[in-house]
Amino acid sequence: MMYSIEQLTDKVNQALDALAYNNKVENLYLPIKYTLDNGGKRIRPVLMMMAYNMYRDDVERILPNALAMEVYHNFTLLHDDVMDKAMMRRGKPCVHVKWDENTAILSGDTMLAMAYQLMTENAAFIKEALAAEVTAYFNAMATFNEATIGVCEGQQFDMDFESMDDVSEAQYMEMIRLKTSLLLSKSLKIGAQLAQADENDALLLHEFGEKIGLAFQLQDDLLDVYGDPAVFGKAIGGDITSNKKTFMLIKTLEMADTQSRKEMEEWISKPEFDKAAKIEAVVAIYDKVGIREVCQKKIEELFAQGMDALSKVWVEEQKKAMLYDFANRLLKRKS
Amino acid sequence: MMYSIEQLTDKVNQALDALAYNNKVENLYLPIKYTLDNGGKRIRPVLMMMAYNMYRDDVERILPNALAMEVYHNFTLLHDDVMDKAMMRRGKPCVHVKWDENTAILSGDTMLAMAYQLMTENAAFIKEALAAEVTAYFNAMATFNEATIGVCEGQQFDMDFESMDDVSEAQYMEMIRLKTSLLLSKSLKIGAQLAQADENDALLLHEFGEKIGLAFQLQDDLLDVYGDPAVFGKAIGGDITSNKKTFMLIKTLEMADTQSRKEMEEWISKPEFDKAAKIEAVVAIYDKVGIREVCQKKIEELFAQGMDALSKVWVEEQKKAMLYDFANRLLKRKS
Repeated sequence: MMYSIEQLTDKVNQALDALAYNNKVENLYLPIKYTLDNGGKRIRPVLMMMAYNMYRDDVERILPNALAMEVYHNFTLLHDDVMDKAMMRRGKPCVHVKWDENTAILSGDTMLAMAYQLMTENAAFIKEALAAEVTAYFNAMATFNEATIGVCEGQQFDMDFESMDDVSEAQYMEMIRLKTSLLLSKSLKIGAQLAQADENDALLLHEFGEKIGLAFQLQDDLLDVYGDPAVFGKAIGGDITSNKKTFMLIKTLEMADTQSRKEMEEWISKPEFDKAAKIEAVVAIYDKVGIREVCQKKIEELFAQGMDALSKVWVEEQKKAMLYDFANRLLKRKS
Repeated sequence: MMYSIEQLTDKVNQALDALAYNNKVENLYLPIKYTLDNGGKRIRPVLMMMAYNMYRDDVERILPNALAMEVYHNFTLLHDDVMDKAMMRRGKPCVHVKWDENTAILSGDTMLAMAYQLMTENAAFIKEALAAEVTAYFNAMATFNEATIGVCEGQQFDMDFESMDDVSEAQYMEMIRLKTSLLLSKSLKIGAQLAQADENDALLLHEFGEKIGLAFQLQDDLLDVYGDPAVFGKAIGGDITSNKKTFMLIKTLEMADTQSRKEMEEWISKPEFDKAAKIEAVVAIYDKVGIREVCQKKIEELFAQGMDALSKVWVEEQKKAMLYDFANRLLKRKS
């Protein structure tokens, strides 16, 4: 059967409305929903389905591809409006006006990644028919998409945290998991998937990368405070003077006694201060609660979990030697 | 055989150096080359190849996937530096410092699209083994990638043209082909590819979309000058007051006599002017050279070429009716 333009437009709009978003990253997806809910004519996806419909009836099959084109198109409008410093789009304020420029950049990036994700979504229907290699390829593509979207989400969390004064340890760990660990764990997983490794092996390698990545980031936070300035390469205490909500800051506020916490909070809220004095005072509190040891212990835990995951990967030990070596190098670094 | 980290890193660096760029869009790709040529450790791609190498020897096979991850990673750094207003990265000025913020946004977007393109590049080796459906899927993915990259290139041309006073008709047509036509022609082509249409049909549909898209954009330029203000929806003459290098402006400068051209150039170079007076004067020159008819003729030519392509598509006429209808609606619009 041939569908009318109206029928196809309805299908596209319904599918756009039904798109699922990660509610946990509301600030990232609200501008995207706002952008996609623009009453547009959906010309591109409808054209795609029309061309398809000339040869086949089952137009729903390419709905994800059609949506990919629409999402991509709207991404370009969003970023173009930033670059052109436009104010209005279809009678509504542009995203960078209603929110701000960084929101517009990042929401746009995410839409671009969403578009590619949609392009691969209907791989599911292809899978039945084909060789293991292609299945592996699509699994890898799906993993890649998880990575590209996840990193955008992590960046959004990081931006959100700047204006929050009650970031929890769990929130911080989730943020660095997305911003730092994800590309490590997904790199490993994609390698395993493309090699058609056992699924459990792919998961274990993913876990190895994730834990090592988290340990790496905490190590970075630790070096910022307790590193050797001659070796570390940048000024010590940068995270302290910028009030960066690191594991150490969050955990110290949690562990400190009332007086120390009050002192910490005073330093954090001071708009002007002597940098050296602030670093000295905060490090004194860090030392008092013993945060260095707490952080070091957490790093070792994560490292051990990563190594444990690697140990369970079902290949000869000698083939894992380089990954053990890699992890060890990462954790022993001083800069 | 197991490769060493050094061997894998070398492979990645060589492949990164060998990446081909479209030299025609130098301003877009220079910051990308600058970003990728950063002496980084290539951790992510090397990890991916290490994991792969645990199961298989032919690591070169996943080099494109590995590069995809590295390019994507560097894209995130580029955009993050914009959002964080960072100045330096690895001892070199950030892209938005060395160039500007818009360059950094757009180069980053392009890198994200390049990353996905690399992810699908090695589809070639899979193709041999499999069903027509999967081939169709990969063809569609390749087309999608041409679209996402092409639009970025078109946006770059548009930005470049703002500071150029000698944009040619051919350059303008190429810019609107990329910015306006590409998503139409690629939408059609993807639809045909996913339906496993004859390749020639896919090309004809692509051509139809391209020509109609170009006609659409010229129609837009024409309406900006000669449209009915009550119907057009925005102020008439906006392109004239902003000196937008449209087909009409470019062609008028080419066709006008010496005195009219001089008058046009004076209006273009005036930093301050009365809007209504400028529009009136420029339209008078437009009328004198008869640009309205020239533009209208060009639109009709493109429209006819598009219709001709569609007529050659090897399906029953009734199945093309909606596309004919679509094109007619687009060209008869007044707003």
